[in-house]
Amino acid sequence: MPRWDPEGESRLREAALQLFLERGYENVTVAEITERAGLTRRTFSRYFADKRDVLFAGSDELPAVIGDRIRTADAALAPMEAVLAALDAVAERLADQAAIAARRQAVVRASPELQERALTKFAVATDAAADALRSRGVPASTATLLAQVAIAIFRTAFERWLNAPAEVSLRDRVRESAAELSSSFGSQPS
Amino acid sequence: MPRWDPEGESRLREAALQLFLERGYENVTVAEITERAGLTRRTFSRYFADKRDVLFAGSDELPAVIGDRIRTADAALAPMEAVLAALDAVAERLADQAAIAARRQAVVRASPELQERALTKFAVATDAAADALRSRGVPASTATLLAQVAIAIFRTAFERWLNAPAEVSLRDRVRESAAELSSSFGSQPS
Repeated sequence: MPRWDPEGESRLREAALQLFLERGYENVTVAEITERAGLTRRTFSRYFADKRDVLFAGSDELPAVIGDRIRTADAALAPMEAVLAALDAVAERLADQAAIAARRQAVVRASPELQERALTKFAVATDAAADALRSRGVPASTATLLAQVAIAIFRTAFERWLNAPAEVSLRDRVRESAAELSSSFGSQPS
Repeated sequence: MPRWDPEGESRLREAALQLFLERGYENVTVAEITERAGLTRRTFSRYFADKRDVLFAGSDELPAVIGDRIRTADAALAPMEAVLAALDAVAERLADQAAIAARRQAVVRASPELQERALTKFAVATDAAADALRSRGVPASTATLLAQVAIAIFRTAFERWLNAPAEVSLRDRVRESAAELSSSFGSQPS
């Protein structure tokens, strides 16, 4: 039996998403997921550490992607430009995953436990971006600020994209959100 | 016996901070805190729900402060200006608490559990700011983005202030961080 079987993995993920949406994440067991998928617990354990892992596997690599892209971005780019280039790279990776991401988001929204986990994941991505900015010579405190803002831009873009994935690409949503934030600083009291 | 006894409360907080810093937050019990403070468990329960509460009581009101100030800020202010006015209000409230805040921060940094709790608290503050911005007519998605950025600005300002509280006020650190972020969008690749 091959160790890597994308069909088994996607069947398990699909079964899990269905069950989470039907019954609520907290009320679903791994046994129910494997039963729905018609696979064994052993197969499940080949792909996922636990129930939460079914939901978040794949996004675990994003902090490293962000960090790498910031580090390797053209040295002439200003820090925020390097950050936006990294977000472009993440957007490309996720470009074909709007449907599954929207369902995953619905599961997370319904579960306080998963919302906490999501916050921790954003924090990990923020740390990765901040580390990478520091490696470009950005002072530590500024690096953390820009990294937090980068994640805020991305989360906003991601939400907008999931609401209408066919209309505007995730990449363009990132640019749109960044432009909106930038212009909000230009506003003066009337 | 008076229900409200600021001295008892501050003695318990001081004892808790000492113990958390000495032994690590996870390794301290409520019994040890009351013993160090020379007070009873009953007195403890008058002020705090649990061990975590000793650390976070006082900051629980900040989301409401942020929300109120954004709602009541001059209607002519642009959204980001209303947000910065609200951060000023929070900065004023915290102005005389640098010493205790720095020790609290050291305790939180040493505990993954408390770091998660802190993230949740930032999320609550973000939600409060976003709600208030929506009540000013800011579109939902933009409100969330600006709220997330506001909290990022505040966190940055707070860290900088704690590192050198005598040098620059928290309020000025907020303005400094906001200005830094604003100018980062102006940077173009050279």
